[in-house]
Amino acid sequence: MTILLAISGWDPDAWLMRFRALGGGREIRLIPDIGDPAKIDYVCAWKPPRGLLAALPNLRAIFSLGAGVDHLLSDPTLPDVPIVRIADPDLTMRMTEYVVLHVLLHHRRFKLYDASQRARRWRDEGDPAASDVRVGIMGLGVLGQAAAAALRALGFQLAGWTRTAKSRPGIETFAGDAGLKPFLARTDILVCLLPLTADTRGVLNYQLFQQLARNGALGGPALINAGRGDSQIEADILRALDDGTLTGASLDVFQQEPLPADSPLWTHPKIFITPHNAAQSDPKALTKYVLAQVERLERGLALENVVDRKRGY
Amino acid sequence: MTILLAISGWDPDAWLMRFRALGGGREIRLIPDIGDPAKIDYVCAWKPPRGLLAALPNLRAIFSLGAGVDHLLSDPTLPDVPIVRIADPDLTMRMTEYVVLHVLLHHRRFKLYDASQRARRWRDEGDPAASDVRVGIMGLGVLGQAAAAALRALGFQLAGWTRTAKSRPGIETFAGDAGLKPFLARTDILVCLLPLTADTRGVLNYQLFQQLARNGALGGPALINAGRGDSQIEADILRALDDGTLTGASLDVFQQEPLPADSPLWTHPKIFITPHNAAQSDPKALTKYVLAQVERLERGLALENVVDRKRGY
Repeated sequence: MTILLAISGWDPDAWLMRFRALGGGREIRLIPDIGDPAKIDYVCAWKPPRGLLAALPNLRAIFSLGAGVDHLLSDPTLPDVPIVRIADPDLTMRMTEYVVLHVLLHHRRFKLYDASQRARRWRDEGDPAASDVRVGIMGLGVLGQAAAAALRALGFQLAGWTRTAKSRPGIETFAGDAGLKPFLARTDILVCLLPLTADTRGVLNYQLFQQLARNGALGGPALINAGRGDSQIEADILRALDDGTLTGASLDVFQQEPLPADSPLWTHPKIFITPHNAAQSDPKALTKYVLAQVERLERGLALENVVDRKRGY
Repeated sequence: MTILLAISGWDPDAWLMRFRALGGGREIRLIPDIGDPAKIDYVCAWKPPRGLLAALPNLRAIFSLGAGVDHLLSDPTLPDVPIVRIADPDLTMRMTEYVVLHVLLHHRRFKLYDASQRARRWRDEGDPAASDVRVGIMGLGVLGQAAAAALRALGFQLAGWTRTAKSRPGIETFAGDAGLKPFLARTDILVCLLPLTADTRGVLNYQLFQQLARNGALGGPALINAGRGDSQIEADILRALDDGTLTGASLDVFQQEPLPADSPLWTHPKIFITPHNAAQSDPKALTKYVLAQVERLERGLALENVVDRKRGY
């Protein structure tokens, strides 16, 4: 059994070390040292080189090492073998941390207090109660549901939007094109955790921002995107922040990553930027998860969390 | 029935408006317009002028309008009538928000990412998982227990310290002088929610900071004080931040409030400052609470949440 690690954009050493330590007798290879392509049974991938996977004739499964599989599906030569999504409680906890932190940063007007601190000014902004603030989450998969539960426990009014109608316990849900407008109209803080698909590309645009609640306790809506950079139109975010359509934004993902040094997003006073690490993949936990799935296959069991290619996630 | 509002340091108008709107037929007076002191039955107080309450011969009860009663007990002329603490779910929720926000700011190394953003630098700091970070809460009253529950739900390792031994479900507790050292030795992020008493004055000092965990996932301990300013020695906080004994601090309360403009705390790069509004008293909710207690007395029932003067809270 041979596992190939096809990782780009991340330091692969931590992954290589873990897979070699935990992989039992399996052979672990790291690109570009592929060896005999016919020997590769499994690929663990993050942004693999285009065409690489098509060159592995006996590939049995592909494991995505980060949240989202658009980095795989965007390769038109991707071979027709099962793609396994990660489903890691640690990653879910980290995303919940990020979402809770950034919702509270906007809710508790961090930028205003930070400016007061720099000016040595003692000023209470009269923050609203969480029960007066409406958070809306786009995307109610494992990550969205966990974030919603944590925010509800803090007292926020929660709602979610999904592409297709689904009911989630304890959260008001809106669905599809028809549900988008009423969802946005009741949302003060918009959290995007959508996967990148043909439908979600560019969905976070000026026209959408204009439909967010204007009557909220925060004086205007805020945007948090920890989904995918290509879901957002960055020029529209800047325009909306500058004309007051948005009051603030937290961006963990970008149309181009790393975010270019000359991007005006970096120094905009209303934006919090993090380097696509809202929910990091923990090599140790994910290595165990991948190896458990490999063992399932080897014991004749079905893989779990297989991606629906038509749906895109 | 006459209620006197004795409020200083806050804008009293919101309180006056609420009490007049909700007070039924009761007469509501605001200092300094006391009228006949013999007519005053109840005082609702926040930092009342010293000696004022002693001049009210028929006073039946004192209601504190903010968390903590040291602003009352510090007056040696305080008359011997029941003092009622606030017990307001809204205030508890707000304190939980503050504590969760500031624990996450230190846990997710906000200051480092903020510096990177200003420098247009894309750099992942490799934040630890919450399950690798130990939060310790000093003071496990209503506020401390609520904050502990919210942090535990986010995955942090929680422990609490109290003056006298008490067991709290789901949280490891340490007590008294003997318990302080082991409590500090397992704490990466210290949250102080203690009331101000003779025992807690100056407890947050350099010698205490030195006993915090040095082997933690954050590279050094952080301090969050949303209790009382006189529990902290500000010169010691600055010394500890500057020599690495502490890595960061969040301060909502200060030895002198408002914090003087010339305090070096304002512009210290490792400190988050807020103007004693971690948990604001909401006039609407508290007015209802106070009037419900007054009604209890008038119907011959006992007051709730009466302060133990000997204990100091």
